[in-house]
Amino acid sequence: MQPVFNNANVEKKPYSAWSARIVQHPLFTKFIITLILINAVVIGLETYPDIFTAYKGYFIIAESIFLWVFTIEIILRLLATDKWYNFFKDGWNVFDFIIVASAHILVSGHFVSILRIIRVFRILRAISVIPSLQRLVTALIKTIPALGNILLLMGLIFYVFAVMGTILFAEVAPEYFGTLGTSLLALFQVVTLESWASAVMRPILVELPWAWIYFVAFILIGTFIVINLFIGVIVTNFQEIVVETKVNKEEDEEEDAQTELERLSNEIAELKAVIISLQEEKGVSQKNN
Amino acid sequence: MQPVFNNANVEKKPYSAWSARIVQHPLFTKFIITLILINAVVIGLETYPDIFTAYKGYFIIAESIFLWVFTIEIILRLLATDKWYNFFKDGWNVFDFIIVASAHILVSGHFVSILRIIRVFRILRAISVIPSLQRLVTALIKTIPALGNILLLMGLIFYVFAVMGTILFAEVAPEYFGTLGTSLLALFQVVTLESWASAVMRPILVELPWAWIYFVAFILIGTFIVINLFIGVIVTNFQEIVVETKVNKEEDEEEDAQTELERLSNEIAELKAVIISLQEEKGVSQKNN
Amino acid sequence: MQPVFNNANVEKKPYSAWSARIVQHPLFTKFIITLILINAVVIGLETYPDIFTAYKGYFIIAESIFLWVFTIEIILRLLATDKWYNFFKDGWNVFDFIIVASAHILVSGHFVSILRIIRVFRILRAISVIPSLQRLVTALIKTIPALGNILLLMGLIFYVFAVMGTILFAEVAPEYFGTLGTSLLALFQVVTLESWASAVMRPILVELPWAWIYFVAFILIGTFIVINLFIGVIVTNFQEIVVETKVNKEEDEEEDAQTELERLSNEIAELKAVIISLQEEKGVSQKNN
Amino acid sequence: MQPVFNNANVEKKPYSAWSARIVQHPLFTKFIITLILINAVVIGLETYPDIFTAYKGYFIIAESIFLWVFTIEIILRLLATDKWYNFFKDGWNVFDFIIVASAHILVSGHFVSILRIIRVFRILRAISVIPSLQRLVTALIKTIPALGNILLLMGLIFYVFAVMGTILFAEVAPEYFGTLGTSLLALFQVVTLESWASAVMRPILVELPWAWIYFVAFILIGTFIVINLFIGVIVTNFQEIVVETKVNKEEDEEEDAQTELERLSNEIAELKAVIISLQEEKGVSQKNN
Repeated sequence: MQPVFNNANVEKKPYSAWSARIVQHPLFTKFIITLILINAVVIGLETYPDIFTAYKGYFIIAESIFLWVFTIEIILRLLATDKWYNFFKDGWNVFDFIIVASAHILVSGHFVSILRIIRVFRILRAISVIPSLQRLVTALIKTIPALGNILLLMGLIFYVFAVMGTILFAEVAPEYFGTLGTSLLALFQVVTLESWASAVMRPILVELPWAWIYFVAFILIGTFIVINLFIGVIVTNFQEIVVETKVNKEEDEEEDAQTELERLSNEIAELKAVIISLQEEKGVSQKNN
Repeated sequence: MQPVFNNANVEKKPYSAWSARIVQHPLFTKFIITLILINAVVIGLETYPDIFTAYKGYFIIAESIFLWVFTIEIILRLLATDKWYNFFKDGWNVFDFIIVASAHILVSGHFVSILRIIRVFRILRAISVIPSLQRLVTALIKTIPALGNILLLMGLIFYVFAVMGTILFAEVAPEYFGTLGTSLLALFQVVTLESWASAVMRPILVELPWAWIYFVAFILIGTFIVINLFIGVIVTNFQEIVVETKVNKEEDEEEDAQTELERLSNEIAELKAVIISLQEEKGVSQKNN
Repeated sequence: MQPVFNNANVEKKPYSAWSARIVQHPLFTKFIITLILINAVVIGLETYPDIFTAYKGYFIIAESIFLWVFTIEIILRLLATDKWYNFFKDGWNVFDFIIVASAHILVSGHFVSILRIIRVFRILRAISVIPSLQRLVTALIKTIPALGNILLLMGLIFYVFAVMGTILFAEVAPEYFGTLGTSLLALFQVVTLESWASAVMRPILVELPWAWIYFVAFILIGTFIVINLFIGVIVTNFQEIVVETKVNKEEDEEEDAQTELERLSNEIAELKAVIISLQEEKGVSQKNN
Repeated sequence: MQPVFNNANVEKKPYSAWSARIVQHPLFTKFIITLILINAVVIGLETYPDIFTAYKGYFIIAESIFLWVFTIEIILRLLATDKWYNFFKDGWNVFDFIIVASAHILVSGHFVSILRIIRVFRILRAISVIPSLQRLVTALIKTIPALGNILLLMGLIFYVFAVMGTILFAEVAPEYFGTLGTSLLALFQVVTLESWASAVMRPILVELPWAWIYFVAFILIGTFIVINLFIGVIVTNFQEIVVETKVNKEEDEEEDAQTELERLSNEIAELKAVIISLQEEKGVSQKNN
């Protein structure tokens, strides 16, 4: 969000300065946000078959207008950057570029259904364009690396239980534990506690009465790790806030204490000066003596 | 909860002062609370068809008594306010007014079933009348704006997934993903983790084996945002409490440190005075010398 | 847990001092804890019909032994208390007394099945007898009053939605919303998010397509309040711990700062003494002059 | 993680020093981690019957290679330890040893299916070998003893409700409350809120209309304790972090305040020196006088 061009403006080519002026204009962002929201509504209306078939022509025209306006937007923002590769250093720009570019690449082929999905992702550009949302999502994503180890552990536990589940229950419950893939999905369902007993465990329990050990163990371990994942997120968030508020609060207090100490220190300095002058006078008087 | 009338009393019309005296009387609030609770019991009894048909006449009489007492209450409180439009500046007063007024407006027409529902809302007036409940709900509502961005993000994610769900699953699972509306409801069900696998995903999975990507992605993103919503509420609540307790605690400590510093500072001041007097005497003695 | 008798021992009757000596003996509590755990195992074994019918006689004998030992225990503890009504001032003693006494009262009648349940409650005496468990439960119960207002609000919301649900859905879904009572139970099920959609809402939705408003509104409000309930518990717990650790930590720091300030203050006092002596000497020398 | 051998190296036998050099080599751990991951992939592939039957010979060879490499690894690490019994003082070493040793012990007999499961556990050795994962799991396990009392209380509540449930519902719902064992499993399902109403309670409710008291009571008590369990984990985690960040932050501040105080103290000391010198000079001048 910080102006990147300030110093670079001088040495830039004329069209670069010209596009930077457009891109930095406050109305530019507002215009793009509005367009994304209208596009979202249009994409929503398209899902109603009656409306779509009745106004198919208008929808196709609207789509190409949206696509080209967003293309021009990206080109302008790319030109406005002093060096084109700096544009792609920001993950959000890459996100915007891929979403718009892919619509051009796929439009020619017969990837119609994929194209429809990609067009929906365009609504997510609201995140990259609205600054407060971009900040929020960036903050949310930043909490993930702090959870790296616990996610790794979670993955390990899932994998071990999935292999074990496949070995143990593949024949009894092929729908849930048929292959490693279905087992992983079943375990995901179990860790969300969704029908873990009524649909997944109890039918297996009829054939293998000891199967509850597997499920209870997985739920206890799984939810314990999930809770610690949550706590990880909470703690990461909190630490920042606590530290922040503390810094603010204690700076104030510090200041109070500091000024008091400074006052004292000044007074002592004064005192010293008085004594020194006293001493000097004395020296003089002694000499005089 | 602060007295609004204290200074305004002098210039008020006589009936205003008279109604203010009634409204501010401690028994007034107690009387209204009691009446709301009795009304709640009566409304509860009405839901039993046997009781209602047996005592229908009494119920109708009771209803009109309740309605008129509450009407008089609102009128008194309105009169007691120095300027009538100040009454409507408090959201709770507007809430009370609408609930009572709507009962009068709809009573004449044939909105009988709507009227029954509105009468139930009258029980919620307990919130606006019991001060501690009013404070709690005001505090709860105040935490919502702090969650603005995360709610906006949640809405965006819901909309994108609802559009995608409608495009992908409308034909396979019309009950859940038939239209944009049903998709949004289905996603709300999925985010509460209620039968998301057993009822929603698994039947779709039979036809579209890759459908798990959509559901797992939505659950991971959705619950991650919901958790952050929770954390938002917790943090908002906490920050206040932490700051509060800190202010209290540290004020005490500060005081201790402060008094100590003051004592020191006083002592230094004394010291200074002694030295200055010493210096002056010296000056005198030197002069005398 | 604090000794109540220390000062009162002198004026007590002989059997009181004698029973106090037994009750306060460290082996007494250990003996009772062991007995409660054995009793728990016996009660557990009784639930297996095969075992119960095979050893019925032994179970009846064991039961009367347990009952009489616990009765003697309560009598001893009652005698050990300086004034008998002080015994009943502790809620845990009342709990113990009722559980043991009710077994005697009901044994004569034909309340066999109620008696079996009451005997099960005896296992809970482990809480009142194991000091660490008693402290924990006392702490948990103490967090409830702090939640008074939010529980009141929850009750109000439940009641309002239950009345509304009965009015709206009594005919469509009598199993869930037939009467005020079943509605309250259905809402409790909905707030735990258990089958709220698949079992409760979706069948109603077929007949009343707008019913989702009721359920979504209740879930949003209900879970929001429940989350705030949780946060209430967390905050109550936390505050104590944060304050505790802070007091400990800051006392240490305070001490450090304090000693430093004291050292300074002492030094200044010394300084003062030196100057005063200086002054006095001077006065002497001036006089001598 | 601290080097254990540094001082002990001198007096060790030659093969001990030699194996210590291998074990402490940075590539050693990396090699073992890589091997565990490859082993995990191989074990995963084995679950696909088609792949397993096609390459059965290779799988058996791979398995014996993995087993022997891990065996040599354990032996080297055992030799590298100065005294062999110190090796088993670390729980993680015991964990590694048991997993590898059990594969040797069971390989000869006909425990083929148990062996397959034990081989899966070998993947969990990734935890003991990757230092960051080992630290995380050690930290997670360390939070459990702090929850001792609350887990004990949970166990007590579960037991009491299980016995009561068996007494009350054994005949009505033998699938859920047939024996003490099935009751405990049913209560675990209820406390996870999985189908507690739709599958467990409502069928019982048809026969015993008061059964909701049992379930609502258990859910309220159970979830309240579970929440407090969570809070226990959170608080345990938090306390450490809060204390940590506080120590860091306040040390800094302390330092600032400290240096200021020191400066003051130094200045006062200087002042004192000046005054003392003044006094001495005076003494001299007085003597001279």
